[in-house]
Amino acid sequence: MKNKPAPRNALYAQSGGVSAVINASACGVIQAALKARRHIGRIYAGRDGIVGVLTEDLIDLTRESPATIRGLRYTPAGAFGSARYKLKGLTENRAQYQRLIEVFRAHDIGYFFYNGGNDSMDTALKISQLGAAMNYPIACIGVPKTVDNDLPHTDCCPGFGSVAKYIAVSTLEGALDVASMARTSTKVFVLEVMGRHAGWIAAAGGLAGRKPGEAPHIILFPEIALDQVRFLARVRQCVIDYGYCVIVVSEGVKTADGKFLADAGTKDAFGHTQLGGVAPVVASMVQQAHGYKYHWAVADYLQRAARHVASKVDVEQAYAVGKAAVQYAISGMNAVMPAIKRRSSRPYRWQIVPVPLADVANVEKKVPREFVTADGFGITAACRRYLEPLIAGEDYPPYRDGLPAYVRIKGAAVKRKLTTEFKL
Amino acid sequence: MKNKPAPRNALYAQSGGVSAVINASACGVIQAALKARRHIGRIYAGRDGIVGVLTEDLIDLTRESPATIRGLRYTPAGAFGSARYKLKGLTENRAQYQRLIEVFRAHDIGYFFYNGGNDSMDTALKISQLGAAMNYPIACIGVPKTVDNDLPHTDCCPGFGSVAKYIAVSTLEGALDVASMARTSTKVFVLEVMGRHAGWIAAAGGLAGRKPGEAPHIILFPEIALDQVRFLARVRQCVIDYGYCVIVVSEGVKTADGKFLADAGTKDAFGHTQLGGVAPVVASMVQQAHGYKYHWAVADYLQRAARHVASKVDVEQAYAVGKAAVQYAISGMNAVMPAIKRRSSRPYRWQIVPVPLADVANVEKKVPREFVTADGFGITAACRRYLEPLIAGEDYPPYRDGLPAYVRIKGAAVKRKLTTEFKL
Repeated sequence: MKNKPAPRNALYAQSGGVSAVINASACGVIQAALKARRHIGRIYAGRDGIVGVLTEDLIDLTRESPATIRGLRYTPAGAFGSARYKLKGLTENRAQYQRLIEVFRAHDIGYFFYNGGNDSMDTALKISQLGAAMNYPIACIGVPKTVDNDLPHTDCCPGFGSVAKYIAVSTLEGALDVASMARTSTKVFVLEVMGRHAGWIAAAGGLAGRKPGEAPHIILFPEIALDQVRFLARVRQCVIDYGYCVIVVSEGVKTADGKFLADAGTKDAFGHTQLGGVAPVVASMVQQAHGYKYHWAVADYLQRAARHVASKVDVEQAYAVGKAAVQYAISGMNAVMPAIKRRSSRPYRWQIVPVPLADVANVEKKVPREFVTADGFGITAACRRYLEPLIAGEDYPPYRDGLPAYVRIKGAAVKRKLTTEFKL
Repeated sequence: MKNKPAPRNALYAQSGGVSAVINASACGVIQAALKARRHIGRIYAGRDGIVGVLTEDLIDLTRESPATIRGLRYTPAGAFGSARYKLKGLTENRAQYQRLIEVFRAHDIGYFFYNGGNDSMDTALKISQLGAAMNYPIACIGVPKTVDNDLPHTDCCPGFGSVAKYIAVSTLEGALDVASMARTSTKVFVLEVMGRHAGWIAAAGGLAGRKPGEAPHIILFPEIALDQVRFLARVRQCVIDYGYCVIVVSEGVKTADGKFLADAGTKDAFGHTQLGGVAPVVASMVQQAHGYKYHWAVADYLQRAARHVASKVDVEQAYAVGKAAVQYAISGMNAVMPAIKRRSSRPYRWQIVPVPLADVANVEKKVPREFVTADGFGITAACRRYLEPLIAGEDYPPYRDGLPAYVRIKGAAVKRKLTTEFKL
């Protein structure tokens, strides 16, 4: 009998802003890796993402219970911690990349799964390149995740469908509320949504209205400079025609001179420029021009953590890209990302295909002009056809005592092997 | 055979801010009234609440389909329109009350169901008194509704349980998000909730955390003046101890001199005092003192319209008070409100009992001191025991194409009988 070498270990890390379904991708990775015992030994995660890898602070996922692993599928946010920590170019930051390889080597990591957005795809690509250059072979697979839906070469990004569903549902519900009150009270309701550079989430608000006159009446996209005069005229016309006006505004909406409207000079109680909060700026603008009573909401983290109203399609896709990442890795692929390819919209059919990380890294996909109506304030039928399947289906978490029974990991630490410290 | 007079008609109206379950109360009223054909003829609603009654703009609910009536049970906001329109004292405003009686007489209204909060209970009481004085007998039944949960003599108010559940779920989800990000990014998350004078909704945020150290770490109640120094010290300690701090703040939180913190002088881009938005004020305060990166959310209408995550108990109670209102009316009661009486907390048992409108009108029930921890920043075990049953159970609406299939009424107008106009 021939002595086969022990299978190498796998490392999974979450990166950037979390989502309602990033843990569903983790679940896909872990369950697939546990089934691939011929290829994969132990399964680790970086605590707080790449920061945990750099500091050799790893979690042993092999020690989590099967129930906890299953529960990740319906638990929002980053169960292992994520990080906003961008590794720069190889030239400026070679020491960081070398440290990563050092940690990988110490723990015999043969597979690296990096779950994030554009930046993270770039990082995964660089690690795979440096690994090769340093004679440390490692399969680096990017697992896509962005609520902003701005990754190229994939029909959509896991995380987006659920935030889209939350915003569409919230717009519908908020609109019913203001419609009830409009005759004697609030006439304008402004909902601020995420998406600093790409207006996909704002566009999803448009799903709430199907017929002419239905809310939202106005969407403000980051891709389209705000024409204040036309905007205010439209608000007025809506109030005349329908009795009220619902506005969905992207946090990234800009004025004609390219400045964020949110930075338009709002001061807080202490005289400091207020960070964030474009909704109150838009609401004040309307109140100033027309005197209408208004309300505004800023969903902020609630939108991207809203696992309680997740899209079933989104959960399935998040799981599927995690699972595919492992299959790609053990079949010998490297520097690729499992992407979602749409086969048809009605009925919705999709499959997972590999795309090279080099094609995805650092490219941003914005809302194309043909998805926005000519007046710049709404979504077209083509946009609706694209978006609608992504919010389809419900996938409720289990509840206990009135609250979702989200899981928390045990998070057992992997014994350190290096004697060197790494300063972040 | 003796000629019996035709049964008199019923009128239902919604009042004040709407909720996720006020239409469930409407459903209870309408279905019970339809079954009481021996006592009740046609069933009308005021379009936009009392405003529709004053202007003789009535909707004929008898012409809505049974499917629409059933759908009201899972449709949020005010299906017939609500109004913020307070009728003042009988002396100042006798003409308004007389107009109401005039409209009632024209349409042979024998039963008036007024679905609202403290003010509305007062109005219903006055109408019943004036009806008697004007020799127009009418059964006036108040149907309780406030998301603020501030009505006395009822264990809770329909509408509150669902907003409580939404806020508890959102606090839990938002907290998981910030916990994931805290090491390298956001350390403080502030969620602003409704409840200008009573902190019940803020208290509900406390349900998200069960163990010491779990979010929310700080709740700011309108009943307790903000001690800025102690508050900021607590925020800092939380970040040291747990790595992050989640704060639930009531829109009605006040400074020691009794002023709303939201009015603390925030100016918008145009130099006007910003209306609403205490979350950014609190977040700035923290950032100013400690420099922590923060995020904040203002749920506003989303919280009270969130039928998608309604409490099953709340839906059942909302329906039950509507149904009981009709039963009280046809059994000859007048100037009462069906109230919820708690029989036990664990297991939760409740029943509906009548209370006189005179006891309820214009009284506000605040969060008692013993429901707030000694430090003023959390909820006690007694508060949790009170709140927990109210968010129990899920009652999801049906979905179509990814969105809740909420119903809209046809809203057929009742033919006018009066020749006089009424100016609001």
